[in-house]
Amino acid sequence: MSKINIIGRGNVATHLEKAFRGKAMVNAVTPRTLETLDVEADFTLICVSDSAIKEVAEKLPELKGIVAHTSGTTPINVFSGLENISGSYGVFYPMQTFSKDSPLDYSRIPFFIEGTDEATERSLCELAGIISNNVETANSDKRKALHVAAVFSCNFVNHLFALAEGYMSEHSLSFSTMLPLIEETVGKLHNLSPREAQTGPAVRKDRMIIDSHLNALNNYPEMKEIYKTITDSIINTYGNERN
Amino acid sequence: MSKINIIGRGNVATHLEKAFRGKAMVNAVTPRTLETLDVEADFTLICVSDSAIKEVAEKLPELKGIVAHTSGTTPINVFSGLENISGSYGVFYPMQTFSKDSPLDYSRIPFFIEGTDEATERSLCELAGIISNNVETANSDKRKALHVAAVFSCNFVNHLFALAEGYMSEHSLSFSTMLPLIEETVGKLHNLSPREAQTGPAVRKDRMIIDSHLNALNNYPEMKEIYKTITDSIINTYGNERN
Repeated sequence: MSKINIIGRGNVATHLEKAFRGKAMVNAVTPRTLETLDVEADFTLICVSDSAIKEVAEKLPELKGIVAHTSGTTPINVFSGLENISGSYGVFYPMQTFSKDSPLDYSRIPFFIEGTDEATERSLCELAGIISNNVETANSDKRKALHVAAVFSCNFVNHLFALAEGYMSEHSLSFSTMLPLIEETVGKLHNLSPREAQTGPAVRKDRMIIDSHLNALNNYPEMKEIYKTITDSIINTYGNERN
Repeated sequence: MSKINIIGRGNVATHLEKAFRGKAMVNAVTPRTLETLDVEADFTLICVSDSAIKEVAEKLPELKGIVAHTSGTTPINVFSGLENISGSYGVFYPMQTFSKDSPLDYSRIPFFIEGTDEATERSLCELAGIISNNVETANSDKRKALHVAAVFSCNFVNHLFALAEGYMSEHSLSFSTMLPLIEETVGKLHNLSPREAQTGPAVRKDRMIIDSHLNALNNYPEMKEIYKTITDSIINTYGNERN
């Protein structure tokens, strides 16, 4: 069984600990208790916010195994030039939205791996393969593009749900009413590309509805701003192709 | 079996025809062939774009049954004062995203019904009940609020997917890679409210990542604008509660 140090107290650390339970020997460490690190461990995963990765890395003792961070956006070279990280290092990025109170099917999480050399990459891929069936390598540029796309497809999408939820609750409507529509919106992606699947007043350039909705949002200036920005983008994207 | 005229050539008309197949006698009519309407039909559903509803309604012959439109935003009173619609009328709004090439489980579609009187409402609810298990009444104000929320939760969400797809394809990445993350984003809604489920750099106020992503979007001005607008809205929404 592999021995892994997992450094962090956030959602990624919590979920990786759970995912490896019974499949590897996990030593959970916080950035403040680095003295409890197992220096003989095969892997040390730094699961902290991007702005803290370098700081944590600088404080690491000399470790026998591979050091990796779990960030989508921070490049692999955050570790380069650190004298204490003399061995091989890499990136172990799980592209997923981790909430503490939501259970997850870890086997479906896509992992994107990068390493200083082929052997390191292979080792990190094997580690990810213990929990997931969906493991690929990706260099830092590709991984950052994935992270940007994930922010649009997940974080921003969820914020639109949150805005809809607030607006509905002010109109005595339950957000759960929206779930069949949301599930169909996502279900369609198995048959159609999002471009083909686009519906609604903006892609039809239905100015009457758009103006009526903007009017309904007069007391919701942030939603109105987002309504305008995304509607303009839809109109620009499709031009006259649906007329 | 009920007899229904369905007026329209778009996605809503097409899907309602399919949904009622074998469950009602459907007479499909286009706005240009109104002379083929069955004046004895129990229902006439006007499934045309919002800006065309009134025009079509004005051209209808005297009909024996109930006339209804299928729009989320157009109020019921679009029919008021029309001399040819002397009987009862209403609204038959299926809150769903209809794409011609995507099959649908009609039984889950939420229908929102409004009628000039209780008997009309009951008849329209019964009609919706033939195909769906999810039928409610809603007045025009409530229905419009639902439609606005649906635009955010479905049309705008799908556009974020389309932008992500385009960006990924320019970075030699397949959009299908994003599906497990998207499915988890939606799956979480069964356990958490969208507000509780929010993750990502904006809710963490991770300026380093946000700036790095904005920089990555320099050649994508529309995506950059949307990135800024939604990130600002997330930061405003959560303030310091996740710090």
